[in-house]
Amino acid sequence: MLKISELMGRIREQNPVVHHLTNWVTIYDCANVVKVFGGSPVMAHAKEEVAEMARLASALVLNIGTLAPDFVEAMKIAAVAANKKGIPVVLDACGAGATRLRDDACFDLLHSVKIDVIKGNRSEIARIAGENVHTRGVDAAEVDRDMIYLAKKLSAERECSTVITGKEDVVTNGIKTYLVNNGHPMMADVVGTGCMAASVIGMFCAVEKDHVAACACGLACYEAAAEMAAAASRGPGTFKENFFDAAYNLDKATVDKMAKIVLLE
Amino acid sequence: MLKISELMGRIREQNPVVHHLTNWVTIYDCANVVKVFGGSPVMAHAKEEVAEMARLASALVLNIGTLAPDFVEAMKIAAVAANKKGIPVVLDACGAGATRLRDDACFDLLHSVKIDVIKGNRSEIARIAGENVHTRGVDAAEVDRDMIYLAKKLSAERECSTVITGKEDVVTNGIKTYLVNNGHPMMADVVGTGCMAASVIGMFCAVEKDHVAACACGLACYEAAAEMAAAASRGPGTFKENFFDAAYNLDKATVDKMAKIVLLE
Amino acid sequence: MLKISELMGRIREQNPVVHHLTNWVTIYDCANVVKVFGGSPVMAHAKEEVAEMARLASALVLNIGTLAPDFVEAMKIAAVAANKKGIPVVLDACGAGATRLRDDACFDLLHSVKIDVIKGNRSEIARIAGENVHTRGVDAAEVDRDMIYLAKKLSAERECSTVITGKEDVVTNGIKTYLVNNGHPMMADVVGTGCMAASVIGMFCAVEKDHVAACACGLACYEAAAEMAAAASRGPGTFKENFFDAAYNLDKATVDKMAKIVLLE
Repeated sequence: MLKISELMGRIREQNPVVHHLTNWVTIYDCANVVKVFGGSPVMAHAKEEVAEMARLASALVLNIGTLAPDFVEAMKIAAVAANKKGIPVVLDACGAGATRLRDDACFDLLHSVKIDVIKGNRSEIARIAGENVHTRGVDAAEVDRDMIYLAKKLSAERECSTVITGKEDVVTNGIKTYLVNNGHPMMADVVGTGCMAASVIGMFCAVEKDHVAACACGLACYEAAAEMAAAASRGPGTFKENFFDAAYNLDKATVDKMAKIVLLE
Repeated sequence: MLKISELMGRIREQNPVVHHLTNWVTIYDCANVVKVFGGSPVMAHAKEEVAEMARLASALVLNIGTLAPDFVEAMKIAAVAANKKGIPVVLDACGAGATRLRDDACFDLLHSVKIDVIKGNRSEIARIAGENVHTRGVDAAEVDRDMIYLAKKLSAERECSTVITGKEDVVTNGIKTYLVNNGHPMMADVVGTGCMAASVIGMFCAVEKDHVAACACGLACYEAAAEMAAAASRGPGTFKENFFDAAYNLDKATVDKMAKIVLLE
Repeated sequence: MLKISELMGRIREQNPVVHHLTNWVTIYDCANVVKVFGGSPVMAHAKEEVAEMARLASALVLNIGTLAPDFVEAMKIAAVAANKKGIPVVLDACGAGATRLRDDACFDLLHSVKIDVIKGNRSEIARIAGENVHTRGVDAAEVDRDMIYLAKKLSAERECSTVITGKEDVVTNGIKTYLVNNGHPMMADVVGTGCMAASVIGMFCAVEKDHVAACACGLACYEAAAEMAAAASRGPGTFKENFFDAAYNLDKATVDKMAKIVLLE
């Protein structure tokens, strides 16, 4: 297994540019989480510049949180450029299962371009995997299925890594499967933690070609910082600011010690 | 009078989905205030999905803070779906009186769909009530009128509840009128407090059909949390984070004790 | 030299409206920085209302951070109204040098309307001054040129003030040149500090016609607050909240003492 601290070090040295087409709610958080870990975020969504921006980047993160048809077109243009350059493309299936437009956007993207990592909560991933799930807005609904099975099936079908975030995160490429057990319940009580996870994943995949390992390391790292922040916070307001501090100050030895990653047989 | 703590409890139990079409400045704050009080925020503005999203929701909040003509069209589609489902629709008349586009958007919405609660500051509500007021941007201008009279008139004409926020909030449906005297001057020194008030109102109306009482309780609850936050803050930066903490941790007995709501004869 | 405290006082008294057409990443920060210093921010981008809004304002700030062709059209309409009214127009050349669209937007704006202040980091200003620089996203790239020379040349050609932010800020109108040496390295480790600088500059130019002096005072004031915030922070998360507190509480005597502005011969 790769050491998290090794990847953290690469991010701090290489300062990878992570290009986002994301939603207007958590766009600041997505940019800032990349910044505090040592990457260089860039947000650009105009069709006229996304290809050029993707060519400057080391990873591309697509998030459909506040999508519109035009926006999906721009995502495709950016992803084509990213595919051509060979940089990882992460899709956050935010709200998949809630509306037809969101489902269509995900399937359209998966059909049109190469997505390297699909990330969502239980209900979102179940929907993308073809289950008949109705998501209640953007928060996770309970899904009565074996999520590891679904994630592996999706990865095999789509030739990608799949990340299911939750109390225990599932990370798989269909062959290798990791469970990540870091994090804190307060992450579910503040807006933005799901979106930031996708940005972190993009940043870690920017510095490591073994994407499934990069995803697991990225999540463990991100959630370790969240654990430290939660311990120092009185609620979700101070938690978020403390999280940015913790991520920024994260010590390599500490993160390797805190990580709870299990490789399934 | 309804107990605030009773409504707070319903929100924490029922976790109502509050669908927003709001501005790009405070969109994060609007989502997060719903989250920390126990609701489930969803932000979606594409014409292609707003009706579907509104049908998943328990309240709809419309805020014209950074509007555009297309956006108003999407608001109407969402509101029609909300009206059909019978969920409350809140309109935050942000910046009414500042430009023709904002006035037109408000009047167009009020004409086309059923708005259950209109919320604004003194100058915004005066403008919506037909007074010849020119708002200076989005901050309240002084209005030389009896605001209670104007709010009651507006409510009677539009068959809705009207909320005027300020040092003393006026909440009326034309018949019952409440004054809410909670809050803290620091709320006027940070961006987003006005918009968050509309989101809170939407969330409280989602769990209580007596809208005028729900609005008064929601404001008192929101402003009580702000009072607690201000007491612990050195300025508007820490105030906002402390506010999210205070809202999250708000104790039922405390909020009932702190509430300063008066029912006018 | 103007006293910073004198301009700070004017802002707190006059409460200038600062109209922004800015990016969706830091739009909240841009609004809030104006608010905490005592101004009144307004964000409006629809073609149908920008001229009217600019006419209500005392300064106009244009930021191309997440631009689109339509957005540039709205910027021009707002700037024409601002020019007609005689209020200062500030252009933040965010990401110039990264894509053709950004370069074109800047040159198009500079050609079509009167820009009073151009602000950017080293690579952005070099690009606007006609150098063959390729910016890496939105973070500053190293530029191997005498920046003071470039800034003066740009100011002379465009008849404007030019601000280059960095460890040492260069502020010039081609004739008078100031160096500002306030600030803290942590400003580069959090998203939004560059954009906020442009908003502060707009606000200071709103209350003082000697724009080059207003820019220097605004930057010194903004960066002095950042120094105070950094001294009280554990990382970029708490830094930002402490910054808003520090700006809000900034004492006139303190800021005059802290300012490190040098007028070059």
